[in-house]
Amino acid sequence: MNARARRSQEEMLADIRAAALAELTEVGIGRMSMAGIAQRSGTARTSLHRRWSSPTEILLEAVEDSYPQETVSPGLDDLRGDLIRALEFLVDWTATPTARAVESILAERARHPELAQALYERVFDQKGGRFTRTVLMHYAEHGYLDPALVTDVVTDIGEALVLKHFADSGSPPDAVLLARIVDEAVLPAVGVPPVVGRES
Amino acid sequence: MNARARRSQEEMLADIRAAALAELTEVGIGRMSMAGIAQRSGTARTSLHRRWSSPTEILLEAVEDSYPQETVSPGLDDLRGDLIRALEFLVDWTATPTARAVESILAERARHPELAQALYERVFDQKGGRFTRTVLMHYAEHGYLDPALVTDVVTDIGEALVLKHFADSGSPPDAVLLARIVDEAVLPAVGVPPVVGRES
Repeated sequence: MNARARRSQEEMLADIRAAALAELTEVGIGRMSMAGIAQRSGTARTSLHRRWSSPTEILLEAVEDSYPQETVSPGLDDLRGDLIRALEFLVDWTATPTARAVESILAERARHPELAQALYERVFDQKGGRFTRTVLMHYAEHGYLDPALVTDVVTDIGEALVLKHFADSGSPPDAVLLARIVDEAVLPAVGVPPVVGRES
Repeated sequence: MNARARRSQEEMLADIRAAALAELTEVGIGRMSMAGIAQRSGTARTSLHRRWSSPTEILLEAVEDSYPQETVSPGLDDLRGDLIRALEFLVDWTATPTARAVESILAERARHPELAQALYERVFDQKGGRFTRTVLMHYAEHGYLDPALVTDVVTDIGEALVLKHFADSGSPPDAVLLARIVDEAVLPAVGVPPVVGRES
């Protein structure tokens, strides 16, 4: 227990979050337990109960912690680049262990609807709702795009096409495809006419 | 066996396909067997082996048989309506038992890549590749759309947004949302500028 005792608060938190993700993968949402997470992370159950009310609380916090926050470049002169970078955040995130946790939570939504709902409200919505939405809203607020065109359907186009590519091919879109998604689908929807043969 | 003996060829085929779907749901792709399908459908194993080389062949045929073929209305004056109807085919299909079979096949793609590949090549690609693609290609071929704008990214927009709505909400998009997907995302990508406040 000496090595354990020397863990910093941050290391312990990281261990606990990793344990929650491992617990989810191995036993499933319905059978996750504080005891299991305590054992996997080498932490006392009582310590866990002091801070979290349930295993899924730890899980949500782990997802929240690793979920990227889309950013906008300084100036308002790179809508295209900002949109591509927003989709890169999504692609990078899908390679993390929490992405698989999110997949499990959504696959089990029929049995655990409250967990899926918490995921949207406490994580996705807090981080901008959809990748590309923060960027599009920013340019619209500053008069570079018609705000009426930045609808929920339009802010979902980039994310939908990236995830569709995963579903169809089993692999992430490359840089060329991300640029094409922005040029051929996202920009036309906000009033930038599609250009044939645009270079990426 | 008297009732069985009186089944028509078509009834027997329907029973066998339904049995393949049930077998998939209950035992999974890796453990599907001709014996299992024979038993569930009340058919002799030898009959199955005469026509199909494996259980997944029966499964693919079942999916192929129920997968809708997108159509184009006579005349070339209803691009918007044709696109909405194309997405309705997709929504209607997702309520069928074969949609769940497709979901299982794609979820198991890492373990059974050849089956996922066969699904795309023998079913999806044969039926137009993507919902809305047949319509968009048709209008482009007749000079109503610039063919260079009808790319693989663009023909995937409608299907991606419909499936994304399922993933986010767990339920199918309604008629209003389907029309908005066409107006706000698909049409702008093929050069029809987005219109603010367009009625659906």
